Amino acid sequence: MQTSVLFTARPKPFSPLVSLKAHYNTPSTLKTGESMAAAPKWAQKTITLPPHKRGCHLITPKILKEIEQDLSGFNCGLAHLFLQHTSASLTINENYDSDVRDDTETFLNRVVPEGQSAPWKHTLEGPDDMPAHIKSSMFGCTLTIPITNGKLNMGTWQGIWMCEHRDYATPRKVVVTLNGI
Amino acid sequence: MQTSVLFTARPKPFSPLVSLKAHYNTPSTLKTGESMAAAPKWAQKTITLPPHKRGCHLITPKILKEIEQDLSGFNCGLAHLFLQHTSASLTINENYDSDVRDDTETFLNRVVPEGQSAPWKHTLEGPDDMPAHIKSSMFGCTLTIPITNGKLNMGTWQGIWMCEHRDYATPRKVVVTLNGI
Amino acid sequence: MQTSVLFTARPKPFSPLVSLKAHYNTPSTLKTGESMAAAPKWAQKTITLPPHKRGCHLITPKILKEIEQDLSGFNCGLAHLFLQHTSASLTINENYDSDVRDDTETFLNRVVPEGQSAPWKHTLEGPDDMPAHIKSSMFGCTLTIPITNGKLNMGTWQGIWMCEHRDYATPRKVVVTLNGI
Repeated sequence: MQTSVLFTARPKPFSPLVSLKAHYNTPSTLKTGESMAAAPKWAQKTITLPPHKRGCHLITPKILKEIEQDLSGFNCGLAHLFLQHTSASLTINENYDSDVRDDTETFLNRVVPEGQSAPWKHTLEGPDDMPAHIKSSMFGCTLTIPITNGKLNMGTWQGIWMCEHRDYATPRKVVVTLNGI
Repeated sequence: MQTSVLFTARPKPFSPLVSLKAHYNTPSTLKTGESMAAAPKWAQKTITLPPHKRGCHLITPKILKEIEQDLSGFNCGLAHLFLQHTSASLTINENYDSDVRDDTETFLNRVVPEGQSAPWKHTLEGPDDMPAHIKSSMFGCTLTIPITNGKLNMGTWQGIWMCEHRDYATPRKVVVTLNGI
Repeated sequence: MQTSVLFTARPKPFSPLVSLKAHYNTPSTLKTGESMAAAPKWAQKTITLPPHKRGCHLITPKILKEIEQDLSGFNCGLAHLFLQHTSASLTINENYDSDVRDDTETFLNRVVPEGQSAPWKHTLEGPDDMPAHIKSSMFGCTLTIPITNGKLNMGTWQGIWMCEHRDYATPRKVVVTLNGI
């Protein structure tokens, strides 16, 4: 195994300020051509989502409500969401027609067998448990979204979904980490 | 809900410079044992990919052309790619034999039903639309790749793919965020 | 194409220290209400995993052994893992019952056809090769995990899995990048 490098980021003395070039996402507080200097910031919090029934759920408003104030302090950065569970998932998909969420749940139930015909060994926690683990790895439990001018820079039709794969709803925790300047 | 912590990163006064230990990825401008100090940097841009036909496409050259110059300024960091759409996806896979991309498209079309036999409710935007949403969540719309010595540190055979899941090609936007020192 | 913005992060002169509010993840060295200042740090290393047989493997202990010492220096941050291969994958799932890993391997082999009946064009490297590429994109080759108080902030039942999709085991490389304060 190679040993690792530890980089401690310290500002170079007298390092010149960087000029911003013209582009669509100049932080709104700066004019093109102006220079900026900012300290990198980190913010981290754990959000507890209330129990959701099995299926796909749009959680953008809930997440935004929790982080909006902190988000507004970042001109440029990344927002990282991490679901601390193995039988639910996070994904980004359509934020408008709820049929898309229903159809996605239909797909997951078709592609991952459940019940008598399923070949699973892990069945102690119920017939929905092993399928839930598989669905969790198919969509994943983590998302990273760009921050631009104090907002999540998603596309017009994109929303954050939490997909609950268990029959019996429980609260779910999401660790949100913001990093940027 | 817990309140969040906001960490403002400021250098500790008199914090010692860190010695680099021997390893494969010492930044090329430093010799083993030398110390370094660098200010963290952020760069962000939106790349518009021209329309691609339905299927999997290798876009590494296109992405590199857009970010190569900025990349070269980072000794160590992360490159984040975010596709702002819900009917296409980003993934990392083989960069050599185009048959791998064709076979992956074949797989996606087998695993996600389309047309008359498909059980979807969301069909207003055409028979390829709901399958496209599902494929987008299967592969995801976001990638994070390590930066080492000014380059994307992918494996020999790895390339960045954009998978277009719609029949009618449209331009696709990717927000690229670079962060590192 | 828009030009990009390069943000050089420099501390603002006289920027005030931030007060930490009460919450579960106050860095353990600070009391609620105390203020903190810290320089952002980056650490990066490549870990070589020994050959694993085809299937899903829990690698949390192996990864932690390699990064634990560096991790302990971060109060808040992100750990990024990047598998440099296209026929294996990284995912987060159950860390306890090994049946979950076996069942996940069973699922992958059911959903991705292999052998005579499979429709693949890319067959030169063996019948397990094209299925391996597809499985790699299904689960992905990259993970980002929050760091809180010097530890990976995963849920109680979460573990890091490396899924080997090839029949013949080879060593696999994971680039780990730590970033935080």
